[in-house]
Amino acid sequence: MSFKELKREVYEANMELVTRDLVIYTFGNVSQIDRDKGVVAIKPSGVAYENLTADDIVIVDLENNIVEGTMRPSSDTKTHTYLYRQWQHIGGITHTHSTYATAWAQAQQPIPCLGTTHADYVFDTIPCTAVIRNDQIERDYEEETGVQITDCFIDRDVNESPMVIVAGHAPFTWGKDAAKSVYHAALLEEIARMAYLTKTLNPQIGDLKQEIMDKHYQRKNGKNAYYGQS
Amino acid sequence: MSFKELKREVYEANMELVTRDLVIYTFGNVSQIDRDKGVVAIKPSGVAYENLTADDIVIVDLENNIVEGTMRPSSDTKTHTYLYRQWQHIGGITHTHSTYATAWAQAQQPIPCLGTTHADYVFDTIPCTAVIRNDQIERDYEEETGVQITDCFIDRDVNESPMVIVAGHAPFTWGKDAAKSVYHAALLEEIARMAYLTKTLNPQIGDLKQEIMDKHYQRKNGKNAYYGQS
Amino acid sequence: MSFKELKREVYEANMELVTRDLVIYTFGNVSQIDRDKGVVAIKPSGVAYENLTADDIVIVDLENNIVEGTMRPSSDTKTHTYLYRQWQHIGGITHTHSTYATAWAQAQQPIPCLGTTHADYVFDTIPCTAVIRNDQIERDYEEETGVQITDCFIDRDVNESPMVIVAGHAPFTWGKDAAKSVYHAALLEEIARMAYLTKTLNPQIGDLKQEIMDKHYQRKNGKNAYYGQS
Amino acid sequence: MSFKELKREVYEANMELVTRDLVIYTFGNVSQIDRDKGVVAIKPSGVAYENLTADDIVIVDLENNIVEGTMRPSSDTKTHTYLYRQWQHIGGITHTHSTYATAWAQAQQPIPCLGTTHADYVFDTIPCTAVIRNDQIERDYEEETGVQITDCFIDRDVNESPMVIVAGHAPFTWGKDAAKSVYHAALLEEIARMAYLTKTLNPQIGDLKQEIMDKHYQRKNGKNAYYGQS
Repeated sequence: MSFKELKREVYEANMELVTRDLVIYTFGNVSQIDRDKGVVAIKPSGVAYENLTADDIVIVDLENNIVEGTMRPSSDTKTHTYLYRQWQHIGGITHTHSTYATAWAQAQQPIPCLGTTHADYVFDTIPCTAVIRNDQIERDYEEETGVQITDCFIDRDVNESPMVIVAGHAPFTWGKDAAKSVYHAALLEEIARMAYLTKTLNPQIGDLKQEIMDKHYQRKNGKNAYYGQS
Repeated sequence: MSFKELKREVYEANMELVTRDLVIYTFGNVSQIDRDKGVVAIKPSGVAYENLTADDIVIVDLENNIVEGTMRPSSDTKTHTYLYRQWQHIGGITHTHSTYATAWAQAQQPIPCLGTTHADYVFDTIPCTAVIRNDQIERDYEEETGVQITDCFIDRDVNESPMVIVAGHAPFTWGKDAAKSVYHAALLEEIARMAYLTKTLNPQIGDLKQEIMDKHYQRKNGKNAYYGQS
Repeated sequence: MSFKELKREVYEANMELVTRDLVIYTFGNVSQIDRDKGVVAIKPSGVAYENLTADDIVIVDLENNIVEGTMRPSSDTKTHTYLYRQWQHIGGITHTHSTYATAWAQAQQPIPCLGTTHADYVFDTIPCTAVIRNDQIERDYEEETGVQITDCFIDRDVNESPMVIVAGHAPFTWGKDAAKSVYHAALLEEIARMAYLTKTLNPQIGDLKQEIMDKHYQRKNGKNAYYGQS
Repeated sequence: MSFKELKREVYEANMELVTRDLVIYTFGNVSQIDRDKGVVAIKPSGVAYENLTADDIVIVDLENNIVEGTMRPSSDTKTHTYLYRQWQHIGGITHTHSTYATAWAQAQQPIPCLGTTHADYVFDTIPCTAVIRNDQIERDYEEETGVQITDCFIDRDVNESPMVIVAGHAPFTWGKDAAKSVYHAALLEEIARMAYLTKTLNPQIGDLKQEIMDKHYQRKNGKNAYYGQS
């Protein structure tokens, strides 16, 4: 894929955040990696979506050096490149401050699996990171945000949850490319909204039982999946 | 009705879910039966609404065999056909994961009748199924979802509530045709939203008294109904 | 005003309910009285807004007899005519099942005055009627809904609150004409929404103090009002 | 800047309130000062946004005398001019009754800093004024609303929070010009909404720790800020 095509895809994925009501003003950013070239295309920092063009998308290498572009890349770039370095299988990352997912992040609670809408996309809870430590803030805040995220998957398969909420901050989601990571950001927001409503309606409700989680996750994502068109 | 007309009606009913903000992406599905021909037209599995065409609608028989269509039918097809086999008087079925109705399903509580908006369309509570048993999940998950639903009406007239919520899952609604089942899905979402707000505002509030339920249900649905144009 | 003009105004006021997101499908109705002619123009019963035309508006006299029109008038017509007979100064009435106002009606609680948004339009609480008695339901349900409403104003000046919520049912609002009653319906919905959020955030919060209520109500509605253009 | 240009900017900032869903009907008002000329342009009182034109904007001096315009200025004009007189560095002021910010004002609670969305724009809590005293209401209600606001900043740098909520009333925000004050009004509404959801989900959650507040506020607003384009 040419830089031009890569920037076009990342531009369109960023604009999809507006269409899906996941961002206002300059909130959020989407990136996509070209593993062959070792470069990441990402939204420039602090540019409002209504002014964004495909040419504004910045290309950096995995050490955060600008390869192409005249603008400064997203201030969250180091979080993105850290995740791309750690997780070889992901191709796109989305960060938003979408309302309900951010409320769960601010409540500093993982999102419990309360129903099949959740179970269709994520196996078990959507993890919430620990609160960032002071030494992490001092060392390299944005890269350490990546560490906060990967720490949630030390004992857990990252493929089971293409999404996480960062405590006191907001969500990050990923996928095979930029578009898929935005898709997961939109699903997370809807799952978070349903979970908020469920918990405020019935605070005692427990998690969905394991067998339903298994069934829904497997029929859509397992090796004998029968959801969708093959 | 020709297959072409049947598919057109089912296509339009599915698209109405988008217009009414009841679905995102590939969530939900609507079907309609042609009792004379013994066939059901239903949304294909995992196709996003923005890509859906009337030609994509799949026609199956009541044993879930494809009669016409090149795509795989909805993964919930067996739930639909089970209900059509059990309830001879219904002509259309809608399944959504609409936000507030799903929150009640996740809270695993029937929706109490708290006001006349509810009483105009449903007599008494909107039932919530029992949680599906493990033996049901293992046997035939989708058909057993149908059993979960009909079990709610063993001691209750199905005509009194053209809607149900499946515990830990989401709502199903029905009617004389596909369009009417979508209408009931939209009403359910609004009733569920009002009930959520009422219960979070005043958790102690009890059900509407029986005499008002009777009056509203009968003036709209009884044999001496005087609501609407005759 | 000719019948044609009266029907046009009532039609437009009804359609404004859709524009302001206060109704779905066939919910709600708006009427306006011509005091000189002794007639009331009102929405026909059970007609969806997308199909409504100005010609469909029905004209009845104050005893609910059809004066002009081929359709059956709103099933709530007797509530409207009762209020017009009791309150000589009002010219228009709106009934909706708008979401937040209906939630308060279902919670069977008056809406407390918690801030100046409320105090600008209504002096003190927005009353909630008593639950309708069984003898009222049996006698004449719709006319008795009018009695429920006027009973709220036995010890209170009706001009201080151009709106009421009917317990277990939904709101009614009024004004000098149909358009003004719709305006009050939209304000009520926003006031009800703010009050819901306030009370769920801080259940202990008391009413706004009397002196601010006075100030805001008087600067907008008193004889020395200085809000707006003279 | 000519009066014509000033009025155009203030008109556009007022209309942005509608675009951002921060006002209905006649709610709210935006102003901008021309410090060289010593004049303030402000929305006229009680004019609905759909009828507003740039020519309707009223120009007053800092003692609230009309300099240009045929309409009566906003009834809140004295609050605006008081703030402009007290705070020499601000250039624009917005007042709305936006839903979630007003709910916090009605709950009479400052908005706690629960996450980085808040910390990006405001350092520490968003202050809530004391309830206005009776002697203030009697003396000069609108000017005293300004005093309520400046009293929140006696021990606090006004630059740390370009926004405040007035107890029992609604928010005021400010910035270098009218457009920036509207931007802060929209951010406040979103921050207030997230904080509402967080607190109703987890009432025990405490404020974000100081070190994250510092980091986010400084990376965006400090002297070594690296967010955005330089």
